[in-house]
Amino acid sequence: MSEPYATAEELDAEDELAPYRKNFVLDETVYLDGNSLGALPRAVPARLADVVEREWGRMRIRSWSESGWWDAPERIGDRIAPLVGAAEGQIVVGDSTSVNIFKAVVAAVRIAQEESAGRPVRSEILVDAATFPTDGYIAESAARMTGATVRAVPAAGMADAAGPATAVALVNHVDYRTGELHDLAAATAAVHRAGGRIVWDVCHSAGALPVELDASGADFAVGCTYKYLNGGPGSPAFLYVRRELQSRFDSPLPGWNSHTDPFAMSPGYVPAEGASRARVGTPDVLSMLALEEALKVWDGVDIAAVRVKSLALTDFFLGRVRAYVPGGRLTSLTPEAHERRGSQVSLLCGGGDGGDGGNDGNGGNDGDGASAPDAESVMAALHARGVVGDFRRPGVLRFGFTPLYTSFADAERAASALGEAVRAG
Amino acid sequence: MSEPYATAEELDAEDELAPYRKNFVLDETVYLDGNSLGALPRAVPARLADVVEREWGRMRIRSWSESGWWDAPERIGDRIAPLVGAAEGQIVVGDSTSVNIFKAVVAAVRIAQEESAGRPVRSEILVDAATFPTDGYIAESAARMTGATVRAVPAAGMADAAGPATAVALVNHVDYRTGELHDLAAATAAVHRAGGRIVWDVCHSAGALPVELDASGADFAVGCTYKYLNGGPGSPAFLYVRRELQSRFDSPLPGWNSHTDPFAMSPGYVPAEGASRARVGTPDVLSMLALEEALKVWDGVDIAAVRVKSLALTDFFLGRVRAYVPGGRLTSLTPEAHERRGSQVSLLCGGGDGGDGGNDGNGGNDGDGASAPDAESVMAALHARGVVGDFRRPGVLRFGFTPLYTSFADAERAASALGEAVRAG
Repeated sequence: MSEPYATAEELDAEDELAPYRKNFVLDETVYLDGNSLGALPRAVPARLADVVEREWGRMRIRSWSESGWWDAPERIGDRIAPLVGAAEGQIVVGDSTSVNIFKAVVAAVRIAQEESAGRPVRSEILVDAATFPTDGYIAESAARMTGATVRAVPAAGMADAAGPATAVALVNHVDYRTGELHDLAAATAAVHRAGGRIVWDVCHSAGALPVELDASGADFAVGCTYKYLNGGPGSPAFLYVRRELQSRFDSPLPGWNSHTDPFAMSPGYVPAEGASRARVGTPDVLSMLALEEALKVWDGVDIAAVRVKSLALTDFFLGRVRAYVPGGRLTSLTPEAHERRGSQVSLLCGGGDGGDGGNDGNGGNDGDGASAPDAESVMAALHARGVVGDFRRPGVLRFGFTPLYTSFADAERAASALGEAVRAG
Repeated sequence: MSEPYATAEELDAEDELAPYRKNFVLDETVYLDGNSLGALPRAVPARLADVVEREWGRMRIRSWSESGWWDAPERIGDRIAPLVGAAEGQIVVGDSTSVNIFKAVVAAVRIAQEESAGRPVRSEILVDAATFPTDGYIAESAARMTGATVRAVPAAGMADAAGPATAVALVNHVDYRTGELHDLAAATAAVHRAGGRIVWDVCHSAGALPVELDASGADFAVGCTYKYLNGGPGSPAFLYVRRELQSRFDSPLPGWNSHTDPFAMSPGYVPAEGASRARVGTPDVLSMLALEEALKVWDGVDIAAVRVKSLALTDFFLGRVRAYVPGGRLTSLTPEAHERRGSQVSLLCGGGDGGDGGNDGNGGNDGDGASAPDAESVMAALHARGVVGDFRRPGVLRFGFTPLYTSFADAERAASALGEAVRAG
């Protein structure tokens, strides 16, 4: 953890990850929205130009084999694997997060139902009550199509909620709104003790902090690649299927790419072995190979070092916000406790209802009780000052800290601009 | 139709679409695999470089609104619409063909089941027996998850097969293997008379010939954009939802992008109006905007003129194959009759079983009964001679004719090389 009174310059000077910043295209803007869309890795444009002009333009159809297009979903999955604590052969890249949540939840329900044989059928999907909405919508559809039901419970209460009716728990590792980090190993163990299966949404943790998928015993996980993994807008998501469950992975989307012999073009479906079983249709090669290049910025990076810097950055930012922002105007929704904090800081305009999780009430000074600023106009004022975060209705300002390219000077400037924006508003 | 004895040079000289060829990156290769992966439109690299370097690299998160990323699925759908006979507001682009088949078939079954109220529930999904395999695999999954069953029937027999149990018919407009074209309007009318709904797979017809979705009364259609639409490897598919059915489109993949107010991030799902209801997750922007640029080559193109040239090309090629290939070595699976022919020619090595559709037996001379050449080695020998088609096991050589860039000289050279390859084999 950083020294409490170190300056941004001192912290940047001793930052071991500082050299990675040059691998990204950055400018005078303070970009704190990498939790929504990661910055452009410098090597991506040249790689994508080569994919388009040579691989597609000149080699055309041959590239499916000769340029490695066909195997890209598994190959890129293996590149993500060490960042989320997974051994190789368990991750495929492709489709959107929503589509992968559907595959994972349906497959998990089917396994849980199969394991209910001779006992009352497990029929309940527990969904993180504060989930990113798509997970909840998709879980409802999965429930409807498998004869299950959905019950929303707070992520922190998942361990207590899991019981003999639990088929699956679908939990966000980091809350997209508050930045609260949930205990992946503990919740996984609790759901397993209850006899259920667990699907983790690691969209807001992959690339931001250690995600111990193998070690925790997690069954399935779905993650996003355009946030902390910098894959580009709408880059394909990934799906982790634990090795022991792969032979039982019964996909609701058995597209031809998941067939054991796709080019046999046989009318009968025989699923592939391994993680390939989680593929569906033809991969979107341009987005996928841009992602592959983007992932090379992680070569040599220790995710533990990323975590250390992430916590130092968010500690520093929270401290500077307390110093710059007039008392009572903003309340932090992001937990002070390191073990409960992801890699973003969420500030609620005006305090009050902090939502479901993580409101420790330490983000704003006790103060003068001035009227709450409007989040949208505060964020617009910040943008005008060259600081980019985003907001989520109602009233939440979000600032993402991406340790490969965010500096302490960025955090200092953002806090200072935030103080001005709040006062101006 | 072309004059029977016109030369390639004469036909190219009078080809009104010949000027469009310069819009593509081509070389000395004769590329007849545009039915699998379309050639690179010349304008795509610059557009994609701008998307990556400026829109992502410099504007970053602002591009979701300011660069039109968010609305791309509908905007690009509207660009495809005139090519498939659809008025605007009925097509969204995104996800793979397989995923869209799942959405369409499930939604169609749900509508058919709802319409069964008070009568025996329509529970059968009729699937084209010669379908591209993914459609069949996905239909089985859709059936399993909606309480329906699947029955395979020949596409040409769909009208007779449809009856009071029919919920949905899923039919390929053009057979991927034989190139046979099925009658979209007639089959649609027959399935509707039986009280069912129809989903068309237009992967092998969109961009190759007129597809009269609105005029035929088709309910749903799914198409591919990387074949005749030249969107690039694995570019996103499209889904047509007939306007009258949009308010009843009940998606099995209700991702947050299909919510009426996605950024409200509300826990309850309320579907958007219109074609947006068929969206799922965040669109893959790089692949999607490459597609958007690729579609601009269609500006000013009349799809009826494309059809005229396509038939002239395939007539010419079939004639030249008869002239160049030793008798009996190859049998055309592609119908001679224009109204039953798509924009590809499929030649079966050695004659014999022509498969389910379209074997008129006119593609090879009666001949000496020499042993059948092996399709894979014939195609390898063709590639060595600078002619690119592909093959499908067992024994089918496929040649796609893409009228915007295929010339009659290409067809001449391909037939000549094919004769050599067969003799060499």
